[in-house]
Amino acid sequence: MRWKFLLAALLCFVLPTSLAEAKEQTKLPNFVVIFADDLGYGDLACFGHPTIATPNLDRMAAEGMKFTQFYAAAPVCTPSRAALMTGRLPLRSGMCSNKRRVLFPNSNGGIPAEEITIAEALRSKGYATACVGKWHLGHHAQFLPTNNGFDSYLGIPYSNDMDRVNDAPKGRAAFLMPQIRFWNVPLMRNEKIIERPADQTTITRRYTEEAVRFIRQHQESPFFLYLPHSMPHVPLFRSPAFVDHSRRGLFGDVIEEVDWSVGQILDTLRELQLDENTLVFFTSDNGPWLIFNELGGSAGLLRDGKGSTWEGGMREPTLAWWPGQIQPGSISRDVASTMDIYATLHHLAGIELPTDRILDSHDLTPVLRGTGKSSRELLFYYRAYQLMAVRKGPWKMHLMTQDAYGPGSRQPVKHDPPLLFNLGHDLSEKFDVAAQHEDVIAEMQRDVERHRRAFEPAPSQLEL
Amino acid sequence: MRWKFLLAALLCFVLPTSLAEAKEQTKLPNFVVIFADDLGYGDLACFGHPTIATPNLDRMAAEGMKFTQFYAAAPVCTPSRAALMTGRLPLRSGMCSNKRRVLFPNSNGGIPAEEITIAEALRSKGYATACVGKWHLGHHAQFLPTNNGFDSYLGIPYSNDMDRVNDAPKGRAAFLMPQIRFWNVPLMRNEKIIERPADQTTITRRYTEEAVRFIRQHQESPFFLYLPHSMPHVPLFRSPAFVDHSRRGLFGDVIEEVDWSVGQILDTLRELQLDENTLVFFTSDNGPWLIFNELGGSAGLLRDGKGSTWEGGMREPTLAWWPGQIQPGSISRDVASTMDIYATLHHLAGIELPTDRILDSHDLTPVLRGTGKSSRELLFYYRAYQLMAVRKGPWKMHLMTQDAYGPGSRQPVKHDPPLLFNLGHDLSEKFDVAAQHEDVIAEMQRDVERHRRAFEPAPSQLEL
Repeated sequence: MRWKFLLAALLCFVLPTSLAEAKEQTKLPNFVVIFADDLGYGDLACFGHPTIATPNLDRMAAEGMKFTQFYAAAPVCTPSRAALMTGRLPLRSGMCSNKRRVLFPNSNGGIPAEEITIAEALRSKGYATACVGKWHLGHHAQFLPTNNGFDSYLGIPYSNDMDRVNDAPKGRAAFLMPQIRFWNVPLMRNEKIIERPADQTTITRRYTEEAVRFIRQHQESPFFLYLPHSMPHVPLFRSPAFVDHSRRGLFGDVIEEVDWSVGQILDTLRELQLDENTLVFFTSDNGPWLIFNELGGSAGLLRDGKGSTWEGGMREPTLAWWPGQIQPGSISRDVASTMDIYATLHHLAGIELPTDRILDSHDLTPVLRGTGKSSRELLFYYRAYQLMAVRKGPWKMHLMTQDAYGPGSRQPVKHDPPLLFNLGHDLSEKFDVAAQHEDVIAEMQRDVERHRRAFEPAPSQLEL
Repeated sequence: MRWKFLLAALLCFVLPTSLAEAKEQTKLPNFVVIFADDLGYGDLACFGHPTIATPNLDRMAAEGMKFTQFYAAAPVCTPSRAALMTGRLPLRSGMCSNKRRVLFPNSNGGIPAEEITIAEALRSKGYATACVGKWHLGHHAQFLPTNNGFDSYLGIPYSNDMDRVNDAPKGRAAFLMPQIRFWNVPLMRNEKIIERPADQTTITRRYTEEAVRFIRQHQESPFFLYLPHSMPHVPLFRSPAFVDHSRRGLFGDVIEEVDWSVGQILDTLRELQLDENTLVFFTSDNGPWLIFNELGGSAGLLRDGKGSTWEGGMREPTLAWWPGQIQPGSISRDVASTMDIYATLHHLAGIELPTDRILDSHDLTPVLRGTGKSSRELLFYYRAYQLMAVRKGPWKMHLMTQDAYGPGSRQPVKHDPPLLFNLGHDLSEKFDVAAQHEDVIAEMQRDVERHRRAFEPAPSQLEL
């Protein structure tokens, strides 16, 4: 009898562990990152917008976590996306430029091969990966998503306002009465152009259908879905079903279609009972493009917008959703960055972070689970290669400012001594308190020196 | 057997009806109106504030209804409160003045006896009534709450920044390091002064304790509790428990104590199982006092603040809560006013509205129950006796503007032709579209003429 007892005891203790491990193995969490384009801090109902209705995003917030101090890594598109993909400041990969703010259709560069994208890391762990939407990290073959970790790609390779045709109205006029044919932007499937110009009217709907199809096809495998919407970047387009859907006009219609899209994704996850095993992030690449007036979004109470390192240019309305793991209706008021998604997904998938390069990514797992804080102490605000500002705790020190919009200077202005704002108290960066806090300035200047000594900017890929 | 069967049948059909009627009679809903002082549209987490934590108000929103276009009736204190109490524009009762914006300690006037306050109306129907907090509708005996429909009163009779003592610091300095003794404001119980200066440090806590006590004492009777907090009007004070409670500094501490207070009220209602029979409103008297910088609140994305008829001066973060009657997490984006509380409470208590006077109040019951819209078509923005602007649907037409803060003029500026903004699209009143919508201007000017012909301003009570 004794060996039988021992066997039973062994089965009790060993087998469950092995089974649990095996189960753990098959239960690697899925990840979805939904990335809007030029969405302002104030543009969702759950972030205080009075007239845009976002019931699906509101529900995502009610079931998940709202981040009130979550930042894009740059105030414009290409560098912001490069940082999201690599967990590194754009100047470390060279995906920024003092001369050309983003990649254009005549650019020859793109994301360097030696960068390890989050998709490459997850694919190495067995994840199925898809990119559906706007890429903007290089449109030549070697730079496309399918050569940077994604199994498949459907989307436009750069911004939807590029490739304007010669007979389209000049200047802003084209945006006021936008027509598909004005912008000869290609829609690509993997490395092939399948439609040109892309029918932008149905693009949000088609991205959504592709994303839902991908989820349905990969219910058994762990998957990573990156869904960077082309909207609400001007020119604004929406499906016929969303025409006059909103009280906010065309811009609101577009946001309400993106909100519908989020609902489709979350509903699919619920239907397939994948909700408790899928972490979904929603955020955006940079702030609202305010120079387009009613066609641009709103940064809410934050100062300025896209293109600027004032808060409105880089702080984004951000949500995280993971039923069973995130406390419903929770709010994180700590500083976090789109770059932190990189370390978070590595941690949750059990992948070691690369040790041969400098990362700017801090694991958000304890924040999401409510068990602790992120290790992030500093946030750097760059405009291309230029360090403009630094944040530490509630303090933001501006070494240089350049307004994209509003009462300040459109030319860069150097501040010596720097400006200092307490972003905890002074949400809209109105009251410079540098004179009262020389100690804070001194400490933050030492942080800047340390940061500068450690960094090796890579040559620009945007000027090739 | 037959008569027994008949009796049983009768009991089945007749008795329940009578019982239901009787129960209906005893089940008149309770009402609580919580009124903050100088709270901005952007000052609650559920209205988008990044650093102030308002978990109780957030829960109230999640369980109730958020109003995104809800207005105070005036951009300053006394007229706003008079309108809330009477359901009438302040100039109909004379509770405004072009010379003195509000009542002061040396004023002799107050709310006229012929006005029918909401408390008087409800008391006539058997409601127990209490006012706990700042009154500011006259401090001589005949004007006090206990002579205007309230069974009891605990609070300060006018603003907490009045009665400044001679040896207090001059100007703004007193607000930066506020001490109780700087303001010799009385605390009153009914018509007696019980403390002078009022200990403002504990005032929010004591108001809350009084309010909770009133609810506990009136569980059986229908009750009306009016709870106009003295805070967050400068000078700012909070209990020791709330010192450094917030990331937003002193102002945030004060809001977080008001939030705690709301939690106490709602928790008491839940505990006593009165929640499904009590309608609670939360709103404020006017926008944030921006000239006080970090000591003032934020209007969020709205323009300007207290004192101005730009949106930031009059639109308030408003919540309604009534479990079982209001759809949880609902949002009303229709235009409504604090004056509408008057008709709503009349309707729900089964009281006829007075027919011998002009009211500016529209029943919100269908909005709260999600069964329809309010009958309100027009909203008038007055600065004392001066009609400044009108709202109809998404349109706001400014006949005159006067900035309290910001880039515009501190002197009144007449606009002929008027300015026109589409508040659905243009949240921050940035883009005047009058030239493109002459038809809208013409229609709204006819509305103004009709309104002017019908109105008989009463002589000012504030200049007595």
